Amino acid sequence: MKMSDVIDDLRAALGNGAVLTGDDIGSKHRSDMSMTGRSLPKALIRPRDPAQVATALRICHAHRQAVVPQGGLTGLAGGANAGPGDIALSLDLLSGVEELDREAATLTVLAGTPLERAQMAAADAGFLLPLDLGSRGTAQVGGNLATNAGGNRVIRYGMARAQVLGLEVVLADGTILSSLNKMLKNNAGFDLKQLFIGSEGTLGIITRVVFRLKPLPRVTSTAFCALESFQAVLALLQKAERELGGPSAFEVMWPDFYRFVTEHKMTNARPFAEEHPFNVLIEHQGLDTENDPARFQGFLEAALEEGLLLDAMVAQNEKEAQAFWRVREGYALDTLPAIVNFDVSLAIGRIGAFVDECRSNLSKRWPGGRFFFYGHIGDSNLHITTCVDYRDGEDMHDVDEIVYRTVRDFAGSVSAEHGIGTLKRDYLGYSRTAEEIAVMRRIKTALDPQGILNPGKVI
Amino acid sequence: MKMSDVIDDLRAALGNGAVLTGDDIGSKHRSDMSMTGRSLPKALIRPRDPAQVATALRICHAHRQAVVPQGGLTGLAGGANAGPGDIALSLDLLSGVEELDREAATLTVLAGTPLERAQMAAADAGFLLPLDLGSRGTAQVGGNLATNAGGNRVIRYGMARAQVLGLEVVLADGTILSSLNKMLKNNAGFDLKQLFIGSEGTLGIITRVVFRLKPLPRVTSTAFCALESFQAVLALLQKAERELGGPSAFEVMWPDFYRFVTEHKMTNARPFAEEHPFNVLIEHQGLDTENDPARFQGFLEAALEEGLLLDAMVAQNEKEAQAFWRVREGYALDTLPAIVNFDVSLAIGRIGAFVDECRSNLSKRWPGGRFFFYGHIGDSNLHITTCVDYRDGEDMHDVDEIVYRTVRDFAGSVSAEHGIGTLKRDYLGYSRTAEEIAVMRRIKTALDPQGILNPGKVI
Ligand SMILES: Cc1cc2nc3c(=O)[nH]c(=O)nc-3n(C[C@H](O)[C@H](O)[C@H](O)COP(=O)(O)OP(=O)(O)OC[C@H]3O[C@@H](n4cnc5c(N)ncnc54)[C@H](O)[C@@H]3O)c2cc1C
Ligand SMILES: Cc1cc2nc3c(=O)[nH]c(=O)nc-3n(C[C@H](O)[C@H](O)[C@H](O)COP(=O)(O)OP(=O)(O)OC[C@H]3O[C@@H](n4cnc5c(N)ncnc54)[C@H](O)[C@@H]3O)c2cc1C
Repeated sequence: MKMSDVIDDLRAALGNGAVLTGDDIGSKHRSDMSMTGRSLPKALIRPRDPAQVATALRICHAHRQAVVPQGGLTGLAGGANAGPGDIALSLDLLSGVEELDREAATLTVLAGTPLERAQMAAADAGFLLPLDLGSRGTAQVGGNLATNAGGNRVIRYGMARAQVLGLEVVLADGTILSSLNKMLKNNAGFDLKQLFIGSEGTLGIITRVVFRLKPLPRVTSTAFCALESFQAVLALLQKAERELGGPSAFEVMWPDFYRFVTEHKMTNARPFAEEHPFNVLIEHQGLDTENDPARFQGFLEAALEEGLLLDAMVAQNEKEAQAFWRVREGYALDTLPAIVNFDVSLAIGRIGAFVDECRSNLSKRWPGGRFFFYGHIGDSNLHITTCVDYRDGEDMHDVDEIVYRTVRDFAGSVSAEHGIGTLKRDYLGYSRTAEEIAVMRRIKTALDPQGILNPGKVI
Repeated sequence: MKMSDVIDDLRAALGNGAVLTGDDIGSKHRSDMSMTGRSLPKALIRPRDPAQVATALRICHAHRQAVVPQGGLTGLAGGANAGPGDIALSLDLLSGVEELDREAATLTVLAGTPLERAQMAAADAGFLLPLDLGSRGTAQVGGNLATNAGGNRVIRYGMARAQVLGLEVVLADGTILSSLNKMLKNNAGFDLKQLFIGSEGTLGIITRVVFRLKPLPRVTSTAFCALESFQAVLALLQKAERELGGPSAFEVMWPDFYRFVTEHKMTNARPFAEEHPFNVLIEHQGLDTENDPARFQGFLEAALEEGLLLDAMVAQNEKEAQAFWRVREGYALDTLPAIVNFDVSLAIGRIGAFVDECRSNLSKRWPGGRFFFYGHIGDSNLHITTCVDYRDGEDMHDVDEIVYRTVRDFAGSVSAEHGIGTLKRDYLGYSRTAEEIAVMRRIKTALDPQGILNPGKVI
């Protein structure tokens, strides 16, 4: 007796249109934005509702067929890349806002909804969905939760995890696990949604999300500051926490970064003509249109008087604020050859020393290399961009080893927000103990005993 | 060959003083504050450090000996009660503040530290540890995390879960799982600490906690308000979120509650002589000593003008604020006979209708019963106290069934913050699906295959 074919079974259950193979699969399904995926999957499933996700997984489970969830494919860790024997399951058609509950201040959306659409549905009703990333137009809320995305406002509102009250997930065997909770307090048994948030599609496929909404801020103040030392940067951050009730962004730039980005014509902005040891972009969003701008101004004046700041410029309008942000975003770096980007985190107080050590370790090996440090320091999150002229026999991963070893020495994390995926799998052990990784495997086996969900990712 | 005795093995490894039996075990170890525990455990272990916790569990695991973690024993769900064949493991001696990191704004403490001691260590350094419960003097931070405690400031700072960055846990087999993370962003693999938070000692024993600290608030404003309808209560809550940037407490009292509590001499306060359909205690904590009190006053005046409020009194000093809180705390209820207390949660918009329905269901069965409704409505958390003159053949649990059935009908949670323990185990299925409970069991089996950790609790 011949075993039935998994693709035939999927087509019979979901309809031919929902199961694509060969050239019918768009080439975007080859890779996420890390551009490291090489092959098309064996098939692409496009379920239209959570029940179809469940049917698809039940069939794949019976066939022990590997399944790779694909959201907006904006990931940067290779987490959504499928091998040639894998079936990709795209959430593209599982899109739409299902409910906005004004009293509970919650928004329920299907997992394939682009983040920006969810943000707009919240804003239309007068609420803020705080989660925000540069990829908002394409990234999906399911992908955001699967990666526990961070983004622009973590210092104020926390990671994606902190903004979710409920989740619906389909398990490897097709069981629908519905925990669409809307309550701020719910201690009835284990909080299962926490398992799936940040597990990069290895434990279940997210089909619905209940977000907790916040009030829309009414007034934004932005300043670009110059400081003498990392100690002063830390003191400014603490002052902002204590006196402003927390900034909405606190972005630090080391001088190599500032120089390169502001000298590049793409940026078209240079807040200070002279260079300083440190630059900080600080943003505050508030509800008090009358008093907040003056409080922000007063805060900076006091910091200048106390000697914490060398200089500061407050944006006088939206255009000036955008120019400050253009510097921080640093897109000019993308014009450099052979760059490698890192997204690490460290205890905030150790970031200054880490940068010195990491730069020194990299420069020892590549004296001619260029190393740019910048990031969301208020969130403990540092970005590094390296630009090295590799010699024969070297490859781009040599830079990984040096950076991640230094991260390990400083008890930091090799992934602050982008996740482990495939690209950082070899370095997971630099930030997590053998015992922790063993427990991750136990959880994986408990929820997906056949290992069909996104195999080879994370662990 | 005779199997060695577990108590002998524990004594040999930990020393006699660390393993008590019989009358040496203080009678407080019989029960948590629900006063439902009946028996002393077979032995009480008192480890002095995390390594001793690990040794104890390794030995108990080898003997398949059930172990019940005991923190401050202030729990209200029977979670820390041990049976006569169980060994209780007390965290009492595992107490102390280990590190306050000013730059990272973190506090690392041993799990047996009383919450109040941890709060004071934070305050001494100029920080707020936001977690706060009435039991702060005795409850331990390990117990707080094991129960994912809520308390007085959830609307502003979230549950215990939201205030923790790192955790160290000992697994059932004695493995030490150390995840003492200090970073706000860390997506290097699964966030394992989430598993242990709120699992009431069934998955591991917490030995260390890293809290995220906040700035100390500088000014508190408190008002006692009268409103016409639950719709007005909801509108006031939303206005407070939008215009005050979130209150630090939003406590609602239904009229039966207000009448009984303010007529009782124990309370010694009655803000309004007349009764109103709803009373709300609203508190705001801020950093702006100059402007916050006026903003709070202006907010209430606008709410009066808009017709949201019937009346409002602003506390003119600490003493008046304490009198408002004494009403809300409602300790006078404890003087009533045969009371049963509930801690449920519901989507905020449905709480008004739930109260009407629940009161009606209870009154149908016990026309002479007295039913008091009040709670942290801004957190979706409702408390109910019932006082019924039970007839022959009835028992106190008959009231449970009616309340929890109504909670189920409203898609609420049978436990907002106190946990499931033993007392609510029969009702877990009213708030969680069969699929969810099955996944909880899978996780339990994965982490504690022999089922030695707090058996019979939660699931
Ligand atoms: C311009 C740009 C800016 C960015 N900025 C940020 C930033 O500030 N912060 C940040 O954290 N990230 C950022 N990213 C990375 C990326 O956008 C996030 O990781 C995002 O959350 C991924 O969402 P996605 O829908 O594109 O997921 P995908 O890339 O499709 O998938 C990501 C991972 O999640 C899994 N997955 C996807 N959907 C589901 C689902 N429904 N159920 C289960 N698993 C699923 C995949 O298998 C994969 O492992 C940025 C990327 C770009 C290109
Ligand atoms: C006056 C009063 C007011 C209260 N107010 C609130 C409130 O506002 N909000 C609220 O949420 N609760 C409240 N509670 C309930 C109680 O204080 C909390 O549940 C508290 O978190 C329990 O801490 P504990 O150390 O006393 O734990 P225990 O009662 O000793 O144990 C509670 C549970 O956790 C487990 N446990 C204890 N320590 C550990 C550990 N180190 N590792 C693993 N498991 C462990 C136990 O096995 C048990 O299942 C109140 C109680 C009282 C008496």
